[in-house]
Amino acid sequence: MAQFGVIGHKGRMGRAIIEAIGEAGHEFRVGVDLGGDPAPLLGQCEVVVDFSSPEALEQNLNSAKTAGIPILIGTTGLGEEHFIMLAEAAEKIPVLQTGNTSLGVTLLAHLVKEAASRLGSDWDIEVLEMHHRMKVDAPSGTAKLLGEAAADARGIDLSDNMESGRHGQTGERREGAIGFATLRGGTVAGEHSVIFAGAEERLTLSHTAENRMIFARGAVRGASWLIGRQAGRYSMNDVLGLA
Amino acid sequence: MAQFGVIGHKGRMGRAIIEAIGEAGHEFRVGVDLGGDPAPLLGQCEVVVDFSSPEALEQNLNSAKTAGIPILIGTTGLGEEHFIMLAEAAEKIPVLQTGNTSLGVTLLAHLVKEAASRLGSDWDIEVLEMHHRMKVDAPSGTAKLLGEAAADARGIDLSDNMESGRHGQTGERREGAIGFATLRGGTVAGEHSVIFAGAEERLTLSHTAENRMIFARGAVRGASWLIGRQAGRYSMNDVLGLA
Amino acid sequence: MAQFGVIGHKGRMGRAIIEAIGEAGHEFRVGVDLGGDPAPLLGQCEVVVDFSSPEALEQNLNSAKTAGIPILIGTTGLGEEHFIMLAEAAEKIPVLQTGNTSLGVTLLAHLVKEAASRLGSDWDIEVLEMHHRMKVDAPSGTAKLLGEAAADARGIDLSDNMESGRHGQTGERREGAIGFATLRGGTVAGEHSVIFAGAEERLTLSHTAENRMIFARGAVRGASWLIGRQAGRYSMNDVLGLA
Amino acid sequence: MAQFGVIGHKGRMGRAIIEAIGEAGHEFRVGVDLGGDPAPLLGQCEVVVDFSSPEALEQNLNSAKTAGIPILIGTTGLGEEHFIMLAEAAEKIPVLQTGNTSLGVTLLAHLVKEAASRLGSDWDIEVLEMHHRMKVDAPSGTAKLLGEAAADARGIDLSDNMESGRHGQTGERREGAIGFATLRGGTVAGEHSVIFAGAEERLTLSHTAENRMIFARGAVRGASWLIGRQAGRYSMNDVLGLA
Repeated sequence: MAQFGVIGHKGRMGRAIIEAIGEAGHEFRVGVDLGGDPAPLLGQCEVVVDFSSPEALEQNLNSAKTAGIPILIGTTGLGEEHFIMLAEAAEKIPVLQTGNTSLGVTLLAHLVKEAASRLGSDWDIEVLEMHHRMKVDAPSGTAKLLGEAAADARGIDLSDNMESGRHGQTGERREGAIGFATLRGGTVAGEHSVIFAGAEERLTLSHTAENRMIFARGAVRGASWLIGRQAGRYSMNDVLGLA
Repeated sequence: MAQFGVIGHKGRMGRAIIEAIGEAGHEFRVGVDLGGDPAPLLGQCEVVVDFSSPEALEQNLNSAKTAGIPILIGTTGLGEEHFIMLAEAAEKIPVLQTGNTSLGVTLLAHLVKEAASRLGSDWDIEVLEMHHRMKVDAPSGTAKLLGEAAADARGIDLSDNMESGRHGQTGERREGAIGFATLRGGTVAGEHSVIFAGAEERLTLSHTAENRMIFARGAVRGASWLIGRQAGRYSMNDVLGLA
Repeated sequence: MAQFGVIGHKGRMGRAIIEAIGEAGHEFRVGVDLGGDPAPLLGQCEVVVDFSSPEALEQNLNSAKTAGIPILIGTTGLGEEHFIMLAEAAEKIPVLQTGNTSLGVTLLAHLVKEAASRLGSDWDIEVLEMHHRMKVDAPSGTAKLLGEAAADARGIDLSDNMESGRHGQTGERREGAIGFATLRGGTVAGEHSVIFAGAEERLTLSHTAENRMIFARGAVRGASWLIGRQAGRYSMNDVLGLA
Repeated sequence: MAQFGVIGHKGRMGRAIIEAIGEAGHEFRVGVDLGGDPAPLLGQCEVVVDFSSPEALEQNLNSAKTAGIPILIGTTGLGEEHFIMLAEAAEKIPVLQTGNTSLGVTLLAHLVKEAASRLGSDWDIEVLEMHHRMKVDAPSGTAKLLGEAAADARGIDLSDNMESGRHGQTGERREGAIGFATLRGGTVAGEHSVIFAGAEERLTLSHTAENRMIFARGAVRGASWLIGRQAGRYSMNDVLGLA
């Protein structure tokens, strides 16, 4: 049983993480309000989970360093300056930052990499995703993460080869392109498929999230895995033993 | 056993239709080259199938009228002037023009209409399609046909409510929108899904074509159904008894 | 805003119904324990929902009759004697009994009937379902309900044509059979597909439940629809206007 | 351009292989009738493909040994005595025997192994397959091959853990079971999915064959890969570089 701190504990994701901490038999020790100073509180914790905001990242990392405990960061929308902060903190404490804490998606990205490296460029790669009607951007961050896994395996750059938002006279599919298609509707928590379409056969690798708790559970599993590690940058791949 | 004429019999679709004519126990009597004059040939036929080009439509309709036989037209890319020609020809002979001769797709459009008319606008409608890598436009004609079936049933105009080619900062899904997403790859003959996404449940109606023969078979079935009908405009719905 | 009574209000389904009553802006007025006598309580209600047990059915129906209010029954495992009780009660009050209160599944069954009546017996019908690992019977009641919709439309008897649990040397598929396949795993709330497989094309009609609340919401919608109706037997088809 | 011999060249699979040989730019040099003696003919070939029968296996292997050329065997229904013959022949020539020559399925089995070894036994494994209505056994050989890949990765024996043909009062899913479900209908060439169902998320790995040519193409690719190899047993994994 580990003692957890949660930054942003009153948000939707924060509350889900507190629930997941309990489910996993750990203890939710302290919550830090958005904008609050975590430093005085983290001394009682063995690990801290941060799903707050890019603006709070620097303070949160400093507090974790002061407390000498690992930090798992699920905040999205980070820029270059944030990645520098993460690298600096990782010299002192274990740091895991990720856009998707789901174990299933982490494994999916690994399998996509494996498949893309084995199949020649005569197999077209398409990424399909569906999310609820409130989502404001397309394709999803996870879809891009999957497209990047495929592009990495092929030794190409995703941004040069992305074919997203097809509409009208598109012309034939470009050779080597990685296509994206986006569905929106209802309350869908998140579905992603990567399709490898070859000559008269197809391989499809898919992930379905039934609800958002899986992201919270993955974060708790990742955070508890961090306890006792050496200082350094970690990823969900490390948690699953895929690195 | 009926006698068939086929205009454009050397094209990919023409050859498939000749194969389907034989399969169905009918006789392929005469083939008309693209650009050829069908008039002298059609006298030997009971029905003619035309998968040639919009430019040839007028001549083809006139030849069928002269021969006094029904015509099934699968040509796509028709404009307003062509629909006037079709209406005129239909005063003299049975005319069936359609963008999709598959019986499965025809029935799918009927079911989509039924579902859309029963489900309120709190059920979001999305149309997903996948075709081979050579297809040059998006979404497919069949996807639009399905979207129109849904729009009709809701009493809205598809063009005002179409959300196709999502990419980037799209904002939330517009209420009442009909969304389209397009996948391209490999040799896929044609797959279409219409998704009704409600609060925590989804209804998905899909059609899969294993290869292009189904469109040829549907055309032959439609054409043989036309023999002996009164002059008039017909649709695949009439062939299936769905009208 | 209507006043609801719920029999079996402490069970998993009872609690979901109470939540759905609130969501829909109605009032949960009284709960009746399993085995309790609803009669004294129902006088305060406009409608009662019963997801308790077959054994309690007779008492529950009598109490609703005494109170002169409609009753919606979602209890499964009913036998012939229960259907006689339902018929008797329906002479005095509105009675709606159903194995699946989801609006999506109700509509799906309607579409299956429509498709099966249009497609000849050269289109093979298969029903696929997936549920969580705790489910103890196969195929699901909803899968059977969908198979029955198909069988009805074809004018055949499901029990004579059911092909379920294929394993080993099965021989070729029997003509006209309705096949069933069952998946079990994880926490899946319920997924059903009816597949019509013809020559080189397929039509698939599917329903996905993201969680169990949809069944509760459908029950509340059905029950509120019953208020003010004439005595008689009703179905979810009536609620959706599909009958 | 390699010279190919085909044993059983008049059968459905034999003809497909001859077509695939031509497609790949190789030469179909000699065909051996079922029951014929390949020895005099194989001297002209660089490799031989055998999709004939278990009964002919011994003679076919001997002929390949005499000719000193590699052999690819796609014959199914082999028993223990045949595997001894294969091992003996593999001391002299390259031998590749497989139940599925599709590259996509070979890769799928590899990904299934990878996923099963990463996910704990709290992720339930299910294998779903669909084939045309003429198929006489269930589950398919490929479904079993996929189930075995999963069982291997978990260090369990498939036969002890197989849950196939669910029907009636099945009880809850057994922990660690590998489930199989079988769909039959229409003209489906072959679809397989392996589902990993965890707590509120699912990973699904699928393969779709649009028609049977992919098996012929895979056999030709495998056979041409064998040319010039050392004597030994090979698998489709070796051809794909997955071993």
